[in-house]
Amino acid sequence: MQNTKAYIAEHKERFIQELIELLKIPSVSADSAFTKDVIAAAEAVKNALSHAGCDTVEICETDGYPIVYGEKLIDSKLPTVLVYGHYDVQPADPIELWDSPPYEPIIKKTALHPEGAIFARGACDDKGQMYMHVKALEFMVKTQQLPCNVKFMIEGEEEVGSDNLGIYVANNKEKLTNDIILISDTGMIANDVPSITTGLRGLSYVEVEITGPNRDLHSGLYGGAVANPINILTKMIASLHDENNHITIPGFYDKVEELSKKERAEMAKAPFNINDYQNALDIDSVYGEEGYTTNERNSIRPTLDVNGIWGGYIGEGAKTVIASKAYAKISMRLVPHQDWEEITKLFKTHFENIAPKGVTVKITPHHGGQGYVTPIDTIGYKAASKAYETTFGKKPIPQRSGGSIPIVALFEKELKSKTILMGFGLDSDAIHSPNEHFGVWNYLKGIETIPYFYKYFTEMKTI
Amino acid sequence: MQNTKAYIAEHKERFIQELIELLKIPSVSADSAFTKDVIAAAEAVKNALSHAGCDTVEICETDGYPIVYGEKLIDSKLPTVLVYGHYDVQPADPIELWDSPPYEPIIKKTALHPEGAIFARGACDDKGQMYMHVKALEFMVKTQQLPCNVKFMIEGEEEVGSDNLGIYVANNKEKLTNDIILISDTGMIANDVPSITTGLRGLSYVEVEITGPNRDLHSGLYGGAVANPINILTKMIASLHDENNHITIPGFYDKVEELSKKERAEMAKAPFNINDYQNALDIDSVYGEEGYTTNERNSIRPTLDVNGIWGGYIGEGAKTVIASKAYAKISMRLVPHQDWEEITKLFKTHFENIAPKGVTVKITPHHGGQGYVTPIDTIGYKAASKAYETTFGKKPIPQRSGGSIPIVALFEKELKSKTILMGFGLDSDAIHSPNEHFGVWNYLKGIETIPYFYKYFTEMKTI
Repeated sequence: MQNTKAYIAEHKERFIQELIELLKIPSVSADSAFTKDVIAAAEAVKNALSHAGCDTVEICETDGYPIVYGEKLIDSKLPTVLVYGHYDVQPADPIELWDSPPYEPIIKKTALHPEGAIFARGACDDKGQMYMHVKALEFMVKTQQLPCNVKFMIEGEEEVGSDNLGIYVANNKEKLTNDIILISDTGMIANDVPSITTGLRGLSYVEVEITGPNRDLHSGLYGGAVANPINILTKMIASLHDENNHITIPGFYDKVEELSKKERAEMAKAPFNINDYQNALDIDSVYGEEGYTTNERNSIRPTLDVNGIWGGYIGEGAKTVIASKAYAKISMRLVPHQDWEEITKLFKTHFENIAPKGVTVKITPHHGGQGYVTPIDTIGYKAASKAYETTFGKKPIPQRSGGSIPIVALFEKELKSKTILMGFGLDSDAIHSPNEHFGVWNYLKGIETIPYFYKYFTEMKTI
Repeated sequence: MQNTKAYIAEHKERFIQELIELLKIPSVSADSAFTKDVIAAAEAVKNALSHAGCDTVEICETDGYPIVYGEKLIDSKLPTVLVYGHYDVQPADPIELWDSPPYEPIIKKTALHPEGAIFARGACDDKGQMYMHVKALEFMVKTQQLPCNVKFMIEGEEEVGSDNLGIYVANNKEKLTNDIILISDTGMIANDVPSITTGLRGLSYVEVEITGPNRDLHSGLYGGAVANPINILTKMIASLHDENNHITIPGFYDKVEELSKKERAEMAKAPFNINDYQNALDIDSVYGEEGYTTNERNSIRPTLDVNGIWGGYIGEGAKTVIASKAYAKISMRLVPHQDWEEITKLFKTHFENIAPKGVTVKITPHHGGQGYVTPIDTIGYKAASKAYETTFGKKPIPQRSGGSIPIVALFEKELKSKTILMGFGLDSDAIHSPNEHFGVWNYLKGIETIPYFYKYFTEMKTI
């Protein structure tokens, strides 16, 4: 790759301006009030891909929002990179907490972004990170350095569960054939600590309902004599962790991968300051599974968290009632090899088993997804690592994320290919929150780094 | 007493209609949206007392809702009965479970009320039972049979802890001087098994708030690494009972009166069928403290129940959030000799002690009250017993209730008088629940029975 820095320096203002125009479109997939804007964003992406050099670009209709597909195939003997991203954004609420309007992007300097960051909904997640790939393609095509084939698949329903993407992928396996999938929808540790996300957790999300007496009762007349569904629910949930905060569901850990001491030692090299972490959250102590560090607890270990609980009288003041029903939403983050459907079944069986007489239990699975790992000894990872090393001057740290991107596991299942997660955002970029932003430096660094991935991947693949 | 039956028969329709008008006023003291209605209910009670024959009636302002005071003093040498009741009602939630609107009273027949019952919030607790006393007074005054002095004190904050009543009573001891206090705010065993409540449980009601991180967090990125306030809350609440359902708060049982075998054997004579009890509640088993029967668990034993719990995402679908805060409303029913303020302190100390690092705890006492016992060898009890025997043709059974009327202990302390609890409702009348109702037969039977209490009490007192 030649002239990357020079090309970016020359076109920098235009690159920023193009992204700003895309960010002005409020493509909120969760709210039907924005339907026209979501469609407009798909059109904008289509045009951008054409201008960047794709030979074929199409808007693929689905039962929901369309998928924008683009490709530039130069030689069937060369490898093919499939880029995935999304043009839809999270709702901007609570809108009153934004310092500037979410769809009127402005550039402001911050402590972590001294060269300025673009503030707008979607700036980082994922329009900004997706658009880096469009501009990287433009650079490679315009400078005649595209080393392999490339396909783009940019969807508009990532923030609402990607339901139609799954169908699209299953129906277009041939068209989507590729050697590696490239996604920028995660983050890195810091601008001077590049990292590549190598693992994502899976997810099982269930809702539980405990029913005791057939109606709400007066707690004076019945208190102590019948099973109170809320008390029972707290007892059942509490029992799901033992005194060392291990999860007590039989079989839950059976398929959990235990990392070697060496791997854990590698992970432990990531910069982490427990005091900063606690101070940022205003907590006097972290909490979690015995025997694991904070970074391990939220990445390589499965968890069980109550995401919501409700029952009885929750209004102002006091009401002496024993509720007929109590509810909770419970999610389990899973690690690779744990099958989310199997874990959901284990949860259901166990939770039904531990219910005492006097109550009935109903369990409704909400959704789930598999965890995912990219081994660091694959060509894809090595190529990405070398690309970061080239542009950052530092080897990136492999990092497991606690979050879930269910479609990554789906891609592996349907398309039989691995995914490389090259994120350029920071944790502090406030994705899903007010004042989302994306560093201008990060945006341009992404455009600079991505072509090297194409180069090294093609070289390693064709040796 | 003469012509009670005839008078009631003649005025029956009006008695019912007057109560229905009072029930139409949604006097919910717990919810400030109903402030005007609570005041309107006080006015309605004032007018009713005037019409019934009180010489003086006044609305006594407090820092909260007013107390309606009325009196008819016929001779200072005769005894004085002080009637207490309340015109406020519980909230109607969950409103969707009512078969008819809670403030549009209708009369429907039920299995236990073949002559019909009035369905409305407050029908039994306490507007219906309070209004029996107003109509009993009307009868005695109109037929010139009032045998003694009478005072009425009807408050509007019973369902929210009676805070201002305590101040009012302490400041008006002279005015409230009496020989016996009469309250109908309890129940009886069955229409053919009259009973008088001789014991009440005390109450300590607290709200707890657990705070973890200073903001809601993404459960993928933080799950497993920080204390989740909902999980912690369930663990803390669950630990408040041991495996035998004894309460684990240190010192909690220290002052609990242990009844003798003989007393427990007496209690066990009350008719009770465990299958009917379970069937009525649609439960396959009762639940409670080891070593005690159902009737003991809800009367002579203290309890701890969660009355409400909430935290995190409780809307439709799934949100992968770790909430910053979780809450619960917890009430403890206490037995005589347990001091509610002491128990509240024990709870607070213990609950703070069991909080793990990583969360903070805030405990807000809502209200409380002492338990109470009326010995059955007092004139008051004997007069009441004879009154029931006259109108029901059966001696009533003395019964300990699981409920609490905290002000009864307060009356004894401040006014040095005993209280007689002449309840005419049934357990199945669904007080505090959707579809609360009060039997028309019970309402009229109360109006018939109360004057005999005045008669016998005056006779026994003046012998």
